[in-house]
Amino acid sequence: MFDANSWITPYLESIFSDLPANDTVKDAAAYSLFAGGKRIRPALMYASALALKDFGVEDTLIAPFAASLEMIHTYSLIHDDLPAMDDDDLRRGRPTCHVQYGEAIAILAGDMLLNSAHEELLKQSIKGTEYATAAHNISRLAGIHGMIGGQSIDIINEGKKIDIDTLYELQEKKTGALIEAAVTTPFFFSNCQADVYSLLKEYAAHLGLAFQIKDDILDVEADESLLGKSTGKDERDNKPTFVTLLGIDNARIKLSEEEQGCYKALELLSEMGLNVTMLHELAEFTIKRNY
Amino acid sequence: MFDANSWITPYLESIFSDLPANDTVKDAAAYSLFAGGKRIRPALMYASALALKDFGVEDTLIAPFAASLEMIHTYSLIHDDLPAMDDDDLRRGRPTCHVQYGEAIAILAGDMLLNSAHEELLKQSIKGTEYATAAHNISRLAGIHGMIGGQSIDIINEGKKIDIDTLYELQEKKTGALIEAAVTTPFFFSNCQADVYSLLKEYAAHLGLAFQIKDDILDVEADESLLGKSTGKDERDNKPTFVTLLGIDNARIKLSEEEQGCYKALELLSEMGLNVTMLHELAEFTIKRNY
Repeated sequence: MFDANSWITPYLESIFSDLPANDTVKDAAAYSLFAGGKRIRPALMYASALALKDFGVEDTLIAPFAASLEMIHTYSLIHDDLPAMDDDDLRRGRPTCHVQYGEAIAILAGDMLLNSAHEELLKQSIKGTEYATAAHNISRLAGIHGMIGGQSIDIINEGKKIDIDTLYELQEKKTGALIEAAVTTPFFFSNCQADVYSLLKEYAAHLGLAFQIKDDILDVEADESLLGKSTGKDERDNKPTFVTLLGIDNARIKLSEEEQGCYKALELLSEMGLNVTMLHELAEFTIKRNY
Repeated sequence: MFDANSWITPYLESIFSDLPANDTVKDAAAYSLFAGGKRIRPALMYASALALKDFGVEDTLIAPFAASLEMIHTYSLIHDDLPAMDDDDLRRGRPTCHVQYGEAIAILAGDMLLNSAHEELLKQSIKGTEYATAAHNISRLAGIHGMIGGQSIDIINEGKKIDIDTLYELQEKKTGALIEAAVTTPFFFSNCQADVYSLLKEYAAHLGLAFQIKDDILDVEADESLLGKSTGKDERDNKPTFVTLLGIDNARIKLSEEEQGCYKALELLSEMGLNVTMLHELAEFTIKRNY
Protein backbone atom coordinates (compact mmCIF):
# COMPACT_ATOMS: atom_id res chain seq x y z
CA MET A 1 0.00 0.00 0.00
CA PHE A 2 0.96 3.62 -0.48
CA ASP A 3 3.24 4.86 2.28
CA ALA A 4 1.88 8.22 3.43
CA ASN A 5 4.98 8.69 5.56
CA SER A 6 7.19 8.97 2.50
CA TRP A 7 4.84 11.60 1.11
CA ILE A 8 4.39 13.95 4.09
CA THR A 9 7.30 13.18 6.43
CA PRO A 10 9.75 15.25 4.33
CA TYR A 11 7.28 18.16 4.47
CA LEU A 12 6.84 17.79 8.24
CA GLU A 13 10.62 17.62 8.62
CA SER A 14 11.06 20.78 6.58
CA ILE A 15 8.56 22.59 8.83
CA PHE A 16 10.46 21.41 11.91
CA SER A 17 13.86 22.31 10.49
CA ASP A 18 12.70 25.96 10.36
CA LEU A 19 11.87 25.97 14.09
CA PRO A 20 14.20 27.25 16.85
CA ALA A 21 16.94 24.80 17.85
CA ASN A 22 17.31 23.54 21.43
CA ASP A 23 13.66 23.91 22.29
CA THR A 24 12.25 21.18 24.53
CA VAL A 25 8.67 21.97 23.51
CA LYS A 26 9.63 21.44 19.87
CA ASP A 27 11.39 18.18 20.81
CA ALA A 28 8.28 16.97 22.66
CA ALA A 29 6.09 17.82 19.66
CA ALA A 30 8.49 15.97 17.33
CA TYR A 31 8.56 12.99 19.73
CA SER A 32 4.81 12.55 19.23
CA LEU A 33 4.64 13.61 15.59
CA PHE A 34 7.40 11.31 14.34
CA ALA A 35 6.34 8.32 16.46
CA GLY A 36 5.30 6.24 13.48
CA GLY A 37 1.55 6.75 13.49
CA LYS A 38 -0.54 5.15 10.76
CA ARG A 39 -0.84 8.48 8.90
CA ILE A 40 -4.38 7.50 7.93
CA ARG A 41 -5.50 11.11 7.43
CA PRO A 42 -2.59 12.07 5.14
CA ALA A 43 -3.11 8.81 3.23
CA LEU A 44 -6.79 9.70 2.78
CA MET A 45 -5.92 13.18 1.58
CA TYR A 46 -3.45 11.75 -0.92
CA ALA A 47 -6.05 9.21 -2.09
CA SER A 48 -8.62 11.97 -2.54
CA ALA A 49 -6.13 14.10 -4.49
CA LEU A 50 -5.35 11.08 -6.65
CA ALA A 51 -9.07 10.52 -7.26
CA LEU A 52 -9.32 14.11 -8.47
CA LYS A 53 -6.11 14.09 -10.53
CA ASP A 54 -8.02 14.32 -13.83
CA PHE A 55 -10.00 17.23 -12.39
CA GLY A 56 -7.05 19.56 -11.83
CA VAL A 57 -5.67 18.44 -8.45
CA GLU A 58 -1.91 18.01 -7.96
CA ASP A 59 -0.83 15.98 -4.93
CA THR A 60 2.24 18.16 -4.41
CA LEU A 61 -0.06 21.14 -3.72
CA ILE A 62 -1.89 19.06 -1.13
CA ALA A 63 1.10 17.84 0.92
CA PRO A 64 1.32 20.96 3.18
CA PHE A 65 -2.37 20.56 4.01
CA ALA A 66 -1.89 16.90 4.88
CA ALA A 67 1.09 17.84 7.06
CA SER A 68 -1.03 20.45 8.87
CA LEU A 69 -3.85 17.97 9.39
CA GLU A 70 -1.46 15.41 10.87
CA MET A 71 -0.06 18.06 13.24
CA ILE A 72 -3.62 18.87 14.36
CA HIS A 73 -4.37 15.18 14.85
CA THR A 74 -1.19 14.74 16.88
CA TYR A 75 -1.87 17.76 19.13
CA SER A 76 -5.32 16.31 19.89
CA LEU A 77 -3.74 13.00 20.93
CA ILE A 78 -1.20 14.74 23.20
CA HIS A 79 -3.91 16.76 24.96
CA ASP A 80 -6.35 13.81 25.08
CA ASP A 81 -3.72 11.66 26.80
CA LEU A 82 -3.15 14.21 29.62
CA PRO A 83 -3.97 13.12 33.19
CA ALA A 84 -6.89 15.58 33.36
CA MET A 85 -8.32 14.11 30.14
CA ASP A 86 -8.05 10.36 29.29
CA ASP A 87 -4.92 9.81 31.40
CA ASP A 88 -3.17 7.45 29.01
CA ASP A 89 0.42 6.29 29.49
CA LEU A 90 1.01 4.49 26.20
CA ARG A 91 0.56 5.75 22.64
CA ARG A 92 1.93 4.42 19.38
CA GLY A 93 3.91 1.89 21.43
CA ARG A 94 5.77 4.50 23.47
CA PRO A 95 5.22 6.49 26.66
CA THR A 96 2.78 9.33 26.00
CA CYS A 97 4.16 12.85 25.62
CA HIS A 98 3.42 13.95 29.20
CA VAL A 99 4.92 10.74 30.63
CA GLN A 100 8.11 11.40 28.66
CA TYR A 101 8.36 15.21 29.04
CA GLY A 102 6.05 16.21 31.91
CA GLU A 103 2.62 17.77 31.78
CA ALA A 104 3.57 21.40 31.26
CA ILE A 105 5.75 20.63 28.24
CA ALA A 106 3.06 18.32 26.83
CA ILE A 107 0.40 21.05 27.09
CA LEU A 108 2.72 23.49 25.29
CA ALA A 109 3.76 20.89 22.70
CA GLY A 110 0.07 20.40 21.85
CA ASP A 111 -0.48 24.14 21.65
CA MET A 112 2.61 24.47 19.48
CA LEU A 113 1.45 21.78 17.03
CA LEU A 114 -2.01 23.35 16.73
CA ASN A 115 -0.45 26.77 16.18
CA SER A 116 2.24 25.55 13.75
CA ALA A 117 -0.38 23.66 11.72
CA HIS A 118 -2.27 26.92 11.33
CA GLU A 119 0.88 28.91 10.58
CA GLU A 120 1.43 26.52 7.69
CA LEU A 121 -2.23 26.78 6.59
CA LEU A 122 -1.95 30.59 6.62
CA LYS A 123 1.35 30.49 4.74
CA GLN A 124 -0.43 28.46 2.05
CA SER A 125 -3.40 30.86 2.14
CA ILE A 126 -1.22 33.71 0.93
CA LYS A 127 -1.03 31.88 -2.44
CA GLY A 128 -4.69 32.41 -3.33
CA THR A 129 -8.38 31.98 -2.58
CA GLU A 130 -8.60 28.24 -3.21
CA TYR A 131 -5.71 27.67 -0.81
CA ALA A 132 -7.40 29.79 1.88
CA THR A 133 -10.74 28.03 1.32
CA ALA A 134 -9.12 24.59 1.64
CA ALA A 135 -7.24 25.74 4.75
CA HIS A 136 -10.40 27.12 6.34
CA ASN A 137 -12.13 23.78 5.70
CA ILE A 138 -9.49 22.01 7.81
CA SER A 139 -9.56 24.58 10.61
CA ARG A 140 -13.38 24.58 10.84
CA LEU A 141 -13.49 20.78 11.06
CA ALA A 142 -10.76 20.79 13.72
CA GLY A 143 -12.63 23.27 15.90
CA ILE A 144 -15.78 23.48 18.00
CA HIS A 145 -17.97 22.62 14.97
CA GLY A 146 -15.88 19.49 14.49
CA MET A 147 -13.24 17.64 16.50
CA ILE A 148 -13.16 19.90 19.57
CA GLY A 149 -16.98 19.82 19.59
CA GLY A 150 -16.75 16.02 19.81
CA GLN A 151 -14.16 16.16 22.58
CA SER A 152 -16.45 18.55 24.40
CA ILE A 153 -19.43 16.12 24.22
CA ASP A 154 -17.05 13.38 25.37
CA ILE A 155 -15.76 15.24 28.43
CA ILE A 156 -19.16 16.60 29.45
CA ASN A 157 -20.63 13.09 29.46
CA GLU A 158 -17.68 11.48 31.22
CA GLY A 159 -18.89 8.85 33.69
CA LYS A 160 -22.50 9.27 32.52
CA LYS A 161 -24.56 6.80 30.54
CA ILE A 162 -25.14 8.12 27.01
CA ASP A 163 -27.46 6.80 24.34
CA ILE A 164 -26.37 5.57 20.92
CA ASP A 165 -27.49 8.81 19.20
CA THR A 166 -25.19 10.85 21.42
CA LEU A 167 -22.37 8.40 20.73
CA TYR A 168 -22.92 8.85 16.99
CA GLU A 169 -22.85 12.65 17.31
CA LEU A 170 -19.77 12.49 19.53
CA GLN A 171 -17.84 10.26 17.13
CA GLU A 172 -19.01 11.96 13.95
CA LYS A 173 -17.30 15.05 15.37
CA LYS A 174 -14.43 13.68 17.44
CA THR A 175 -13.09 11.21 14.86
CA GLY A 176 -15.19 11.92 11.78
CA ALA A 177 -14.44 15.61 11.37
CA LEU A 178 -10.70 15.24 10.64
CA ILE A 179 -11.41 12.32 8.31
CA GLU A 180 -13.89 14.57 6.48
CA ALA A 181 -11.18 17.25 6.34
CA ALA A 182 -8.73 14.74 4.85
CA VAL A 183 -11.14 13.54 2.17
CA THR A 184 -12.77 16.85 1.21
CA THR A 185 -9.84 19.30 1.24
CA PRO A 186 -8.47 18.38 -2.22
CA PHE A 187 -11.93 19.11 -3.71
CA PHE A 188 -11.29 22.85 -3.30
CA PHE A 189 -8.46 22.62 -5.85
CA SER A 190 -10.61 20.74 -8.36
CA ASN A 191 -12.89 21.93 -11.12
CA CYS A 192 -15.69 19.62 -9.91
CA GLN A 193 -19.24 20.56 -8.97
CA ALA A 194 -20.76 20.43 -5.49
CA ASP A 195 -22.23 16.93 -5.96
CA VAL A 196 -18.68 15.52 -5.89
CA TYR A 197 -18.05 17.35 -2.62
CA SER A 198 -21.25 15.85 -1.14
CA LEU A 199 -20.27 12.32 -2.12
CA LEU A 200 -16.72 12.72 -0.78
CA LYS A 201 -18.28 13.95 2.46
CA GLU A 202 -20.62 10.95 2.55
CA TYR A 203 -17.74 8.52 1.99
CA ALA A 204 -15.83 10.27 4.78
CA ALA A 205 -18.78 10.11 7.19
CA HIS A 206 -19.17 6.36 6.72
CA LEU A 207 -15.42 5.82 6.89
CA GLY A 208 -15.11 7.89 10.08
CA LEU A 209 -17.75 5.78 11.81
CA ALA A 210 -16.24 2.55 10.46
CA PHE A 211 -12.84 3.70 11.75
CA GLN A 212 -14.21 4.35 15.23
CA ILE A 213 -16.31 1.18 15.45
CA LYS A 214 -13.21 -0.78 14.41
CA ASP A 215 -11.17 1.05 17.08
CA ASP A 216 -13.75 0.07 19.69
CA ILE A 217 -13.68 -3.56 18.52
CA LEU A 218 -9.85 -3.55 18.58
CA ASP A 219 -9.89 -2.29 22.16
CA VAL A 220 -11.56 -5.58 23.06
CA GLU A 221 -9.86 -7.94 20.63
CA ALA A 222 -6.47 -6.62 19.57
CA ASP A 223 -3.02 -7.71 20.53
CA GLU A 224 -1.64 -4.87 22.70
CA SER A 225 1.85 -5.15 21.21
CA LEU A 226 0.45 -4.72 17.68
CA LEU A 227 -1.96 -1.94 18.67
CA GLY A 228 0.72 0.13 20.40
CA LYS A 229 -1.62 1.19 23.19
CA SER A 230 -3.38 -0.39 26.15
CA THR A 231 -6.38 -2.64 25.38
CA GLY A 232 -9.47 -3.34 27.47
CA LYS A 233 -9.30 0.25 28.65
CA ASP A 234 -12.79 1.28 27.47
CA GLU A 235 -14.53 -1.26 29.71
CA ARG A 236 -12.27 -0.53 32.69
CA ASP A 237 -12.97 3.20 32.26
CA ASN A 238 -16.71 2.58 31.86
CA LYS A 239 -16.40 4.43 28.56
CA PRO A 240 -19.35 4.44 26.17
CA THR A 241 -18.27 2.85 22.88
CA PHE A 242 -20.05 1.09 20.02
CA VAL A 243 -19.03 -2.19 21.67
CA THR A 244 -20.09 -1.31 25.23
CA LEU A 245 -23.41 0.20 24.04
CA LEU A 246 -24.35 -2.28 21.30
CA GLY A 247 -22.44 -5.45 22.16
CA ILE A 248 -19.69 -6.86 19.95
CA ASP A 249 -22.00 -8.62 17.46
CA ASN A 250 -24.14 -5.56 16.76
CA ALA A 251 -20.99 -3.44 16.55
CA ARG A 252 -19.75 -5.77 13.80
CA ILE A 253 -23.07 -5.38 11.96
CA LYS A 254 -22.82 -1.58 12.20
CA LEU A 255 -19.22 -1.76 10.95
CA SER A 256 -20.41 -3.71 7.93
CA GLU A 257 -23.17 -1.17 7.26
CA GLU A 258 -20.69 1.70 7.33
CA GLU A 259 -18.38 -0.28 5.06
CA GLN A 260 -21.19 -0.68 2.52
CA GLY A 261 -21.94 3.05 2.84
CA CYS A 262 -18.32 3.82 1.89
CA TYR A 263 -18.44 1.56 -1.17
CA LYS A 264 -21.80 2.97 -2.34
CA ALA A 265 -20.43 6.55 -2.27
CA LEU A 266 -17.30 5.43 -4.10
CA GLU A 267 -19.36 3.69 -6.76
CA LEU A 268 -21.18 6.93 -7.52
CA LEU A 269 -17.90 8.88 -7.54
CA SER A 270 -16.42 6.33 -9.90
CA GLU A 271 -19.39 6.78 -12.26
CA MET A 272 -18.58 10.49 -12.30
CA GLY A 273 -15.08 9.72 -13.56
CA LEU A 274 -13.03 9.81 -10.34
CA ASN A 275 -10.30 7.23 -9.84
CA VAL A 276 -11.39 5.80 -6.50
CA THR A 277 -9.04 2.80 -6.32
CA MET A 278 -6.99 4.10 -3.42
CA LEU A 279 -9.98 5.47 -1.50
CA HIS A 280 -11.39 1.94 -1.79
CA GLU A 281 -8.17 0.35 -0.55
CA LEU A 282 -8.08 2.67 2.45
CA ALA A 283 -11.66 1.81 3.41
CA GLU A 284 -10.76 -1.88 3.22
CA PHE A 285 -7.61 -1.32 5.27
CA THR A 286 -9.55 0.62 7.93
CA ILE A 287 -12.03 -2.18 8.34
CA LYS A 288 -9.66 -5.16 8.15
CA ARG A 289 -6.69 -3.75 10.13
CA ASN A 290 -5.67 -5.52 13.33
CA TYR A 291 -3.89 -2.50 14.91
CA MET B 1 -9.45 56.80 26.72
CA PHE B 2 -10.69 54.72 23.77
CA ASP B 3 -12.69 51.70 24.91
CA ALA B 4 -11.40 48.72 22.97
CA ASN B 5 -14.23 46.60 24.39
CA SER B 6 -16.83 48.60 22.51
CA TRP B 7 -14.83 48.07 19.32
CA ILE B 8 -14.14 44.33 19.41
CA THR B 9 -16.68 42.88 21.87
CA PRO B 10 -19.48 42.96 19.27
CA TYR B 11 -17.20 41.11 16.87
CA LEU B 12 -16.27 38.52 19.51
CA GLU B 13 -19.94 38.11 20.37
CA SER B 14 -20.85 37.54 16.73
CA ILE B 15 -18.17 34.82 16.49
CA PHE B 16 -19.60 33.16 19.62
CA SER B 17 -23.21 33.44 18.46
CA ASP B 18 -22.29 31.21 15.48
CA LEU B 19 -20.98 28.45 17.77
CA PRO B 20 -22.97 25.39 18.90
CA ALA B 21 -25.45 26.10 21.74
CA ASN B 22 -25.26 24.22 25.07
CA ASP B 23 -21.57 23.54 24.86
CA THR B 24 -19.71 23.73 28.18
CA VAL B 25 -16.34 24.18 26.47
CA LYS B 26 -17.73 27.23 24.65
CA ASP B 27 -19.16 28.55 27.93
CA ALA B 28 -15.78 28.12 29.62
CA ALA B 29 -14.04 29.96 26.78
CA ALA B 30 -16.62 32.78 26.98
CA TYR B 31 -16.19 32.92 30.76
CA SER B 32 -12.52 33.80 30.30
CA LEU B 33 -12.88 35.87 27.13
CA PHE B 34 -15.64 38.15 28.43
CA ALA B 35 -14.15 38.56 31.89
CA GLY B 36 -13.38 42.24 31.40
CA GLY B 37 -9.70 42.12 30.55
CA LYS B 38 -7.89 45.34 29.73
CA ARG B 39 -8.02 44.58 25.98
CA ILE B 40 -4.58 46.15 25.62
CA ARG B 41 -3.75 44.23 22.44
CA PRO B 42 -6.97 45.16 20.60
CA ALA B 43 -6.51 48.77 21.75
CA LEU B 44 -2.98 48.73 20.33
CA MET B 45 -4.20 47.30 17.04
CA TYR B 46 -6.87 49.97 16.82
CA ALA B 47 -4.31 52.67 17.64
CA SER B 48 -1.98 51.36 14.95
CA ALA B 49 -4.83 51.28 12.40
CA LEU B 50 -5.70 54.85 13.39
CA ALA B 51 -2.05 55.90 12.95
CA LEU B 52 -2.18 54.46 9.41
CA LYS B 53 -5.62 55.83 8.51
CA ASP B 54 -4.18 58.28 5.97
CA PHE B 55 -2.20 55.41 4.44
CA GLY B 56 -5.20 53.30 3.45
CA VAL B 57 -6.04 51.39 6.65
CA GLU B 58 -9.70 51.09 7.76
CA ASP B 59 -10.24 50.08 11.39
CA THR B 60 -13.36 48.05 10.48
CA LEU B 61 -11.16 45.72 8.39
CA ILE B 62 -8.88 45.26 11.39
CA ALA B 63 -11.51 44.32 14.02
CA PRO B 64 -11.63 40.57 13.15
CA PHE B 65 -7.83 40.42 13.50
CA ALA B 66 -7.99 42.14 16.89
CA ALA B 67 -10.72 39.70 17.97
CA SER B 68 -8.54 36.77 16.92
CA LEU B 69 -5.54 38.17 18.75
CA GLU B 70 -7.56 38.59 21.95
CA MET B 71 -8.79 34.99 21.66
CA ILE B 72 -5.17 33.82 21.31
CA HIS B 73 -4.14 35.92 24.31
CA THR B 74 -7.02 34.49 26.38
CA TYR B 75 -6.21 30.86 25.47
CA SER B 76 -2.63 31.44 26.60
CA LEU B 77 -3.87 32.74 29.97
CA ILE B 78 -6.19 29.73 30.45
CA HIS B 79 -3.40 27.25 29.73
CA ASP B 80 -0.80 29.25 31.71
CA ASP B 81 -3.06 29.20 34.77
CA LEU B 82 -3.39 25.37 34.75
CA PRO B 83 -2.07 23.44 37.77
CA ALA B 84 0.70 21.87 35.64
CA MET B 85 1.79 25.35 34.49
CA ASP B 86 1.64 28.43 36.79
CA ASP B 87 -1.17 27.01 38.98
CA ASP B 88 -3.07 30.27 39.43
CA ASP B 89 -6.50 30.45 41.09
CA LEU B 90 -7.39 34.07 40.39
CA ARG B 91 -7.47 35.96 37.08
CA ARG B 92 -9.18 39.21 36.16
CA GLY B 93 -10.76 39.22 39.64
CA ARG B 94 -12.48 35.85 39.25
CA PRO B 95 -11.63 32.17 39.73
CA THR B 96 -9.45 30.96 36.84
CA CYS B 97 -11.08 28.84 34.13
CA HIS B 98 -9.96 25.47 35.51
CA VAL B 99 -11.07 26.41 39.05
CA GLN B 100 -14.52 27.25 37.68
CA TYR B 101 -14.93 24.46 35.09
CA GLY B 102 -12.35 21.80 35.90
CA GLU B 103 -9.05 21.07 34.22
CA ALA B 104 -10.26 19.02 31.25
CA ILE B 105 -12.77 21.67 30.16
CA ALA B 106 -10.15 24.40 30.63
CA ILE B 107 -7.65 22.58 28.42
CA LEU B 108 -10.30 22.20 25.70
CA ALA B 109 -11.52 25.79 26.14
CA GLY B 110 -7.96 26.97 25.49
CA ASP B 111 -7.64 24.69 22.46
CA MET B 112 -11.00 25.93 21.20
CA LEU B 113 -10.01 29.60 21.50
CA LEU B 114 -6.72 29.00 19.68
CA ASN B 115 -8.53 27.08 16.94
CA SER B 116 -11.43 29.56 16.65
CA ALA B 117 -9.00 32.46 16.43
CA HIS B 118 -7.37 30.73 13.47
CA GLU B 119 -10.70 29.80 11.88
CA GLU B 120 -11.48 33.52 11.90
CA LEU B 121 -8.02 34.38 10.51
CA LEU B 122 -8.50 31.85 7.71
CA LYS B 123 -12.01 33.14 6.99
CA GLN B 124 -10.46 36.59 6.56
CA SER B 125 -7.66 35.14 4.42
CA ILE B 126 -10.15 34.05 1.78
CA LYS B 127 -10.68 37.77 1.02
CA GLY B 128 -7.21 38.30 -0.43
CA THR B 129 -3.44 38.24 -0.13
CA GLU B 130 -3.07 41.19 2.26
CA TYR B 131 -5.58 39.57 4.62
CA ALA B 132 -3.69 36.26 4.55
CA THR B 133 -0.36 38.04 5.06
CA ALA B 134 -1.72 39.96 8.07
CA ALA B 135 -3.24 36.76 9.47
CA HIS B 136 0.02 34.85 9.05
CA ASN B 137 1.84 37.62 10.92
CA ILE B 138 -0.39 37.03 13.96
CA SER B 139 -0.10 33.25 13.84
CA ARG B 140 3.69 33.31 13.48
CA LEU B 141 4.07 35.64 16.47
CA ALA B 142 1.70 33.46 18.56
CA GLY B 143 3.68 30.29 17.84
CA ILE B 144 7.06 28.77 18.63
CA HIS B 145 8.89 31.73 17.06
CA GLY B 146 6.93 34.04 19.37
CA MET B 147 4.68 33.58 22.40
CA ILE B 148 4.87 29.78 22.69
CA GLY B 149 8.66 30.03 22.28
CA GLY B 150 8.67 32.37 25.30
CA GLN B 151 6.46 30.02 27.33
CA SER B 152 8.84 27.23 26.41
CA ILE B 153 11.89 29.13 27.72
CA ASP B 154 9.84 29.92 30.85
CA ILE B 155 8.84 26.31 31.59
CA ILE B 156 12.27 24.85 30.79
CA ASN B 157 13.93 27.24 33.25
CA GLU B 158 11.35 26.80 36.00
CA GLY B 159 13.00 26.72 39.41
CA LYS B 160 16.40 27.55 37.86
CA LYS B 161 18.34 30.79 38.17
CA ILE B 162 18.37 32.59 34.82
CA ASP B 163 20.42 35.61 33.80
CA ILE B 164 18.99 38.93 32.66
CA ASP B 165 19.68 38.18 28.96
CA THR B 166 17.55 35.01 29.14
CA LEU B 167 14.81 36.98 30.91
CA TYR B 168 14.86 39.54 28.09
CA GLU B 169 14.62 36.80 25.44
CA LEU B 170 11.85 35.06 27.39
CA GLN B 171 9.77 38.21 27.76
CA GLU B 172 10.41 39.56 24.27
CA LYS B 173 8.73 36.37 23.09
CA LYS B 174 6.22 35.54 25.84
CA THR B 175 4.72 39.02 26.19
CA GLY B 176 6.35 41.00 23.41
CA ALA B 177 5.35 38.85 20.45
CA LEU B 178 1.58 39.40 20.73
CA ILE B 179 2.17 43.12 21.33
CA GLU B 180 4.24 43.17 18.15
CA ALA B 181 1.38 41.36 16.39
CA ALA B 182 -1.09 43.99 17.62
CA VAL B 183 1.02 46.93 16.49
CA THR B 184 2.33 45.59 13.17
CA THR B 185 -0.72 43.78 11.71
CA PRO B 186 -2.45 46.92 10.35
CA PHE B 187 0.73 47.74 8.40
CA PHE B 188 -0.08 44.94 5.92
CA PHE B 189 -3.19 46.86 4.82
CA SER B 190 -1.28 50.11 4.33
CA ASN B 191 0.56 51.53 1.36
CA CYS B 192 3.61 52.30 3.51
CA GLN B 193 7.20 51.18 2.97
CA ALA B 194 9.13 48.73 5.12
CA ASP B 195 10.74 51.47 7.24
CA VAL B 196 7.33 52.13 8.81
CA TYR B 197 7.04 48.44 9.63
CA SER B 198 10.47 48.49 11.29
CA LEU B 199 9.58 51.49 13.44
CA LEU B 200 6.22 50.01 14.48
CA LYS B 201 8.10 46.86 15.45
CA GLU B 202 10.61 48.91 17.44
CA TYR B 203 7.83 50.76 19.29
CA ALA B 204 6.19 47.39 20.04
CA ALA B 205 9.43 45.85 21.32
CA HIS B 206 9.98 48.69 23.79
CA LEU B 207 6.32 48.69 24.79
CA GLY B 208 6.28 44.92 25.35
CA LEU B 209 9.25 45.14 27.69
CA ALA B 210 7.77 48.19 29.45
CA PHE B 211 4.52 46.27 29.87
CA GLN B 212 6.28 43.30 31.46
CA ILE B 213 8.59 45.34 33.71
CA LYS B 214 5.49 47.24 34.90
CA ASP B 215 3.70 43.91 35.53
CA ASP B 216 6.64 42.74 37.62
CA ILE B 217 6.64 45.99 39.60
CA LEU B 218 2.87 45.71 40.13
CA ASP B 219 3.27 42.19 41.49
CA VAL B 220 5.26 43.77 44.34
CA GLU B 221 3.40 47.04 44.75
CA ALA B 222 -0.17 46.78 43.50
CA ASP B 223 -3.43 46.57 45.41
CA GLU B 224 -4.67 42.99 44.82
CA SER B 225 -8.31 44.10 44.52
CA LEU B 226 -7.40 46.57 41.76
CA LEU B 227 -5.06 44.14 39.99
CA GLY B 228 -7.62 41.31 39.89
CA LYS B 229 -4.98 38.65 40.58
CA SER B 230 -2.77 37.57 43.47
CA THR B 231 0.23 39.79 44.28
CA GLY B 232 3.61 38.87 45.75
CA LYS B 233 3.38 35.60 43.84
CA ASP B 234 6.62 36.04 41.87
CA GLU B 235 8.76 36.12 45.00
CA ARG B 236 6.86 33.24 46.67
CA ASP B 237 7.30 31.16 43.50
CA ASN B 238 10.96 32.11 43.21
CA LYS B 239 10.16 33.33 39.73
CA PRO B 240 12.75 35.30 37.79
CA THR B 241 11.37 38.77 37.01
CA PHE B 242 12.87 42.16 36.24
CA VAL B 243 12.27 43.02 39.92
CA THR B 244 13.71 39.82 41.42
CA LEU B 245 16.75 39.94 39.08
CA LEU B 246 17.48 43.68 39.06
CA GLY B 247 15.88 45.00 42.25
CA ILE B 248 12.98 47.44 42.25
CA ASP B 249 15.04 50.60 41.66
CA ASN B 250 16.88 49.23 38.63
CA ALA B 251 13.60 47.81 37.30
CA ARG B 252 12.19 51.35 37.44
CA ILE B 253 15.20 52.68 35.52
CA LYS B 254 14.75 49.97 32.86
CA LEU B 255 11.05 50.83 32.64
CA SER B 256 11.94 54.45 32.01
CA GLU B 257 14.46 53.45 29.31
CA GLU B 258 11.84 51.36 27.50
CA GLU B 259 9.37 54.25 27.82
CA GLN B 260 11.85 56.58 26.13
CA GLY B 261 12.42 53.95 23.42
CA CYS B 262 8.67 53.96 22.70
CA TYR B 263 8.53 57.74 22.41
CA LYS B 264 11.60 57.89 20.16
CA ALA B 265 10.06 55.40 17.68
CA LEU B 266 6.78 57.33 17.74
CA GLU B 267 8.58 60.59 17.08
CA LEU B 268 10.10 59.15 13.91
CA LEU B 269 6.74 57.69 12.83
CA SER B 270 5.12 61.06 13.43
CA GLU B 271 7.72 62.71 11.19
CA MET B 272 6.68 60.25 8.47
CA GLY B 273 3.12 61.50 8.68
CA LEU B 274 1.52 58.92 10.96
CA ASN B 275 -0.97 60.06 13.59
CA VAL B 276 0.64 58.55 16.68
CA THR B 277 -1.53 60.24 19.36
CA MET B 278 -3.25 57.09 20.52
CA LEU B 279 -0.12 54.92 20.34
CA HIS B 280 1.46 57.55 22.61
CA GLU B 281 -1.48 57.46 25.03
CA LEU B 282 -1.33 53.68 25.25
CA ALA B 283 2.39 53.74 26.05
CA GLU B 284 1.68 56.24 28.82
CA PHE B 285 -1.20 54.13 30.13
CA THR B 286 0.95 50.98 30.13
CA ILE B 287 3.64 52.65 32.18
CA LYS B 288 1.43 54.61 34.61
CA ARG B 289 -1.34 52.00 35.23
CA ASN B 290 -1.85 50.70 38.77
CA TYR B 291 -3.60 47.46 37.73
